[in-house]
Amino acid sequence: MKIYKEQIYLTSHGGTPSFFNITPSVKEIIKKSEIQNGICAVISPHTTCSVFFEEFVHDYTEDGDEYLQADLNNVLKKIIPDQVEEGQYNYPGEKHYEAVLSWPDAEDYLPNGDRSALLNCDAHLKATLIGSSEIFEVDNGKLGVGPTGYIYFVDFDRTRSRIRKCKIIVLGE
Amino acid sequence: MKIYKEQIYLTSHGGTPSFFNITPSVKEIIKKSEIQNGICAVISPHTTCSVFFEEFVHDYTEDGDEYLQADLNNVLKKIIPDQVEEGQYNYPGEKHYEAVLSWPDAEDYLPNGDRSALLNCDAHLKATLIGSSEIFEVDNGKLGVGPTGYIYFVDFDRTRSRIRKCKIIVLGE
Amino acid sequence: MKIYKEQIYLTSHGGTPSFFNITPSVKEIIKKSEIQNGICAVISPHTTCSVFFEEFVHDYTEDGDEYLQADLNNVLKKIIPDQVEEGQYNYPGEKHYEAVLSWPDAEDYLPNGDRSALLNCDAHLKATLIGSSEIFEVDNGKLGVGPTGYIYFVDFDRTRSRIRKCKIIVLGE
Repeated sequence: MKIYKEQIYLTSHGGTPSFFNITPSVKEIIKKSEIQNGICAVISPHTTCSVFFEEFVHDYTEDGDEYLQADLNNVLKKIIPDQVEEGQYNYPGEKHYEAVLSWPDAEDYLPNGDRSALLNCDAHLKATLIGSSEIFEVDNGKLGVGPTGYIYFVDFDRTRSRIRKCKIIVLGE
Repeated sequence: MKIYKEQIYLTSHGGTPSFFNITPSVKEIIKKSEIQNGICAVISPHTTCSVFFEEFVHDYTEDGDEYLQADLNNVLKKIIPDQVEEGQYNYPGEKHYEAVLSWPDAEDYLPNGDRSALLNCDAHLKATLIGSSEIFEVDNGKLGVGPTGYIYFVDFDRTRSRIRKCKIIVLGE
Repeated sequence: MKIYKEQIYLTSHGGTPSFFNITPSVKEIIKKSEIQNGICAVISPHTTCSVFFEEFVHDYTEDGDEYLQADLNNVLKKIIPDQVEEGQYNYPGEKHYEAVLSWPDAEDYLPNGDRSALLNCDAHLKATLIGSSEIFEVDNGKLGVGPTGYIYFVDFDRTRSRIRKCKIIVLGE
């Protein structure tokens, strides 16, 4: 039994949720692992990001989203509307602003002290619903999904562009 | 540390979501694995199917669904209505139809060229919400859940009956 | 490759969903495992409970919930209203009451025969949506999340206070 892991970097675009088809990366990492049978954990270490399993669709909206991504956005928006102002949700509270401002890396979270950078309650809740990790099969040295199955990483945070990490961990023999 | 895995086959009925109580299979596979302590990953390799953990209920609807399954269907339908026609969601787009038609196994996805077989956007989105995998404990050679805990596999795709796979992977020692 | 596991006990308060920041426990268990690189599975063995990954917020509601927890409650309540009476959902059915009453430990599920103890359909469905497990990275002997990432266990069951378990399993080398 052995373990192999890598992390990949993804640059979110802000404005709308950023979706990434990370299937090629996952397949390449499984190959490099030389593990034949086991599991592959795909994990978001960010609290506004999720990992999910979905069909790849060949049509794109004007925003550049695949059709199922756009449909997912529409469904999630209905139950968790985009946060556009303070007071719309409880989050973020006054103490949270103060805490973030006191961090040594406050500039990363509140660029230029702009409080609107914390107006991402919707992204936090969407990520909680979709979940931060999924487990896939490693089968005979390959990703054990059918031909229509793809792995996506999404950053629901619309407040700004950021560099995100995704952890890919292969365990098996 | 060792690994043991099997896949089980489940025949969905179409018309409504198909739920399967796979707990007996998971327990049997853990027993066959002879692994005493570790994890058991239960994984759907299909993008309209999910795995979830729920109580077994002793009452059934006329459709044959356990009461909690019927309640889950009702909640999900409210936020993700059944797709009954093209144009209701973005998915499936024209390029997606064309791509599927070009596949060597197109007949599996569009039987008799019937485009309605792709009207399963709701199933894709429901599966994304519920998730494609769950991890369970293997404890002293047994599934580590309480007496009311059961593992379900669901195919949300209502378009037709199909044979589905579920992957069960045990890791531990 | 080795495995290390522990279970922690959490006392839910009833009345409203009970949230627990279990990050300190998970970090301590990873440290005790002496595993440097691998995965950490965090699992609820209860069907009304979930595990999720979220930011820690410094503001609390009057109920004692962090702001993102209160926002999550509000979103979930909209789509899955609190069960306040029989007939609101299919669950729990008459046969389920009878089955539970026949269990040797019926008193745990129906204290004093009070049928309202089973009026927790909303908790079951919320737990299915959020999911029963998440996988995290173990990176250089530490929990592989960023400084704002925390692990929460939630019991959505509002019917009464109970002692709940959470399973934490570390695999790696």
